[in-house]
Amino acid sequence: MNHPYALQSTLKRPLPDALAARLRAHFGERFSTAQAVRDHHGRDESPFPVTPPDAVVFAESTEDVVEAVNACREHQFPIIAYGAGSSLEGHLLAVQGGLTIDLSRMNRMVAVHAEDLNCTVQAGVTRKQLNAEIKDTGLFFPIDPGADASLGGMSATRASGTNAVRYGTMRENVLGLTVVTAQGKVIRTGGRAKKSSAGYDLTRLFVGSEGTLGIITEVTVKLYPVPEAMSAAVCNFPSLRDAVSTVIESIQLGVPVARSEFLDPITIRAINAHSHTTLREAPTLFFEFHGSESSVKDQAEIVQEIARSKGGQDFEWATQPEDRTRLWNARHNAYFACLQLRPGCRAISTDTCVPISRLADSITGARAILDTAHFPTALLGHVGDGNFHAVLLIDPGNPQEVAEAERLNDEIVRMAIAMDGTCTGEHGIGLHKIGFLVEEAGEDAIDLMRGIKRAFDPDGLLNPGKIFRL
Amino acid sequence: MNHPYALQSTLKRPLPDALAARLRAHFGERFSTAQAVRDHHGRDESPFPVTPPDAVVFAESTEDVVEAVNACREHQFPIIAYGAGSSLEGHLLAVQGGLTIDLSRMNRMVAVHAEDLNCTVQAGVTRKQLNAEIKDTGLFFPIDPGADASLGGMSATRASGTNAVRYGTMRENVLGLTVVTAQGKVIRTGGRAKKSSAGYDLTRLFVGSEGTLGIITEVTVKLYPVPEAMSAAVCNFPSLRDAVSTVIESIQLGVPVARSEFLDPITIRAINAHSHTTLREAPTLFFEFHGSESSVKDQAEIVQEIARSKGGQDFEWATQPEDRTRLWNARHNAYFACLQLRPGCRAISTDTCVPISRLADSITGARAILDTAHFPTALLGHVGDGNFHAVLLIDPGNPQEVAEAERLNDEIVRMAIAMDGTCTGEHGIGLHKIGFLVEEAGEDAIDLMRGIKRAFDPDGLLNPGKIFRL
Repeated sequence: MNHPYALQSTLKRPLPDALAARLRAHFGERFSTAQAVRDHHGRDESPFPVTPPDAVVFAESTEDVVEAVNACREHQFPIIAYGAGSSLEGHLLAVQGGLTIDLSRMNRMVAVHAEDLNCTVQAGVTRKQLNAEIKDTGLFFPIDPGADASLGGMSATRASGTNAVRYGTMRENVLGLTVVTAQGKVIRTGGRAKKSSAGYDLTRLFVGSEGTLGIITEVTVKLYPVPEAMSAAVCNFPSLRDAVSTVIESIQLGVPVARSEFLDPITIRAINAHSHTTLREAPTLFFEFHGSESSVKDQAEIVQEIARSKGGQDFEWATQPEDRTRLWNARHNAYFACLQLRPGCRAISTDTCVPISRLADSITGARAILDTAHFPTALLGHVGDGNFHAVLLIDPGNPQEVAEAERLNDEIVRMAIAMDGTCTGEHGIGLHKIGFLVEEAGEDAIDLMRGIKRAFDPDGLLNPGKIFRL
Repeated sequence: MNHPYALQSTLKRPLPDALAARLRAHFGERFSTAQAVRDHHGRDESPFPVTPPDAVVFAESTEDVVEAVNACREHQFPIIAYGAGSSLEGHLLAVQGGLTIDLSRMNRMVAVHAEDLNCTVQAGVTRKQLNAEIKDTGLFFPIDPGADASLGGMSATRASGTNAVRYGTMRENVLGLTVVTAQGKVIRTGGRAKKSSAGYDLTRLFVGSEGTLGIITEVTVKLYPVPEAMSAAVCNFPSLRDAVSTVIESIQLGVPVARSEFLDPITIRAINAHSHTTLREAPTLFFEFHGSESSVKDQAEIVQEIARSKGGQDFEWATQPEDRTRLWNARHNAYFACLQLRPGCRAISTDTCVPISRLADSITGARAILDTAHFPTALLGHVGDGNFHAVLLIDPGNPQEVAEAERLNDEIVRMAIAMDGTCTGEHGIGLHKIGFLVEEAGEDAIDLMRGIKRAFDPDGLLNPGKIFRL
């Protein structure tokens, strides 16, 4: 294969017959080596080519996962956890072959503790399913990566989304986990108490570990009362910097904005085409405010005043639930809308996050870098957190475009790291940012991470090849 | 020594002459083996007897810490980090002897990034100093354990306090750390971006690691705009359960209470004596609300209505800054006020935290357990988080009282763990809760913690004897 993103496979070895037999005996029809099933589990939303595992099992319980892990350990065979397949960084790809454990059938609510504002779900429950299941409690779960990702996958990548500026990321919202270790032990981390100083923070260690330290099978997350009042707004600006500065000043003033999303004119064009909206093709902010009636009014007034001082116009309000839903569906579909700007393309999405005071420089700098591109590019993001995405729409079969995209990506990431920021705000390291992590964290910190990896997974079987080189 | 809390010292060996010479050469007058200095560094606020280190160095820079760590590693000599000495769990005690690195002279502000709502401080900066230093920025740092603890110590114990119900604990508020590892490397974890998915969460791993994984020398923390409006209130209740239920319902309704502290009649009596207040000796709540003028008004109205429905009375408001300061100083001094109820006593403080729906059961259960005690006891705590403290005022020289206190402590902790809670909400494990951590987390989870410890500190030199037995 001569694909520009072709992946190393020198470490691959065939599925041992005895392992296949053991898995077939336990999982029956839920064990598969069919090419279509393997291919389905060997691709995600990243620009990498399909890199299938050797086999797939569909787990229905923590015990199933224990069995699969024990079987693979006995045969020293790689293990990859699979949730919804919505990774943008190649997390799922079987670069050293292996067995994929598909957790999507582990989609039961384990317990809803509405009176404690938390619930425990199996790892395959998706964020939309979770919110549908708790609809009658008056509570909601705010974390919303664009895709309808699984809670296990969101935990494993430390995901966030549009609401993180107000409600935090998975880092702040996971209270506890059930994890199957590489030794096949079932451990419970954290608990249901809101805080704890009891020992090392294993919960936060597994959150963001990208399947390399254990397989998450249950997740306990915080829930929040549906606010008394919610109001969303759209506003256009003369320039990218004016839009971003509006958000920066709002955050600096302490306005508890629930969502503040930037979309550049190209993204707006893509959304208009995809979601049949008629938004003006200008630098745009989508806002949402949560709170009591009076608090939402206060917040909206302050932000509107700041926006006007920056030339913001066409302030349009969406106070009806259906209008808000339409607006945020359009936002959540922005990534897929962008993909349709160029049929057949794949996207490389940057994911830098910088201290908010550097955001205007970072995002205008990124625009300048992208303006040199020979393919379409778009800019959008969770600007209230200092996090934005440049979406580079390339023909993945064209080595020149790939090389150019990687060069532009490098420039944008290096700029963010130089600003005391991070190479990834919410997508994770996966396959694509291994080098950037070294630049950002330094070799000595990576050595500590490697030490944790070796302590937890001495045989190196859990999602090998991701995050760092051992 | 026949003290009931006498500590194991079989592993102690004398300070090697060559190590003393090397430390004296580098630190000069800042190296001490004087008994008074050693004793001062061998006691904290726990009931354990003075357990001094063999020597103390006063670090003034990260490079000083590197030098001390390298010297100790060469001689395989234990190393204990020391901040303000306000631990309640024996974190600082040199149970295997060793060198204490006193970080209190590392008290410089490294950088204040007001526009990013964060700052970086040296580990010896205390919370009160930090707030004094940033007074003119319009920002504040909310985490407030009762004592004027150092930011390094607060990070190492995952501390919180009265504001955590609104602003989170050190877990949520530390953005990044500078750490000297056991190998004498200086690493920087996290950064200044508000969120990141870049690799394992080393920041959260060092937060709460109690000096066992590395020495924290700098801390980057979030800051918050001083709210436009703040209002505090005191309210009495007919019973402990009525008071606690008021808080539970407020939290469940999503009122963003900034502080909600419970104090039992004995604590109120102690405060009245210590702080010359005239509060009624009844189950009492102290509240504080932060926000815009209208939001604070909304919050106060809802909570007042709930309180009234539970028989709350004498709702007294403190809207003036000096009245609020007086109220919260009285609360912060409650622990020391309780100590004065029985001259010469020491306190054992429980620190359980449970899901909020179990709080009323947990706290009334604790009261029933304490009512059997043959010494004074008090109950107070951060009930908005489900966290409270039973303060057991014992004569530490009386083995019967010690045994009884430990038995009552055990019962309260086991009740919390059975309620899906934790043995420590904010004080840490230290020496006192090693057994409880095993019950709470399970041996398999502790084994993962031990694996991390061995990976980071293979010689076991960093604060040995704390958190778990290796």
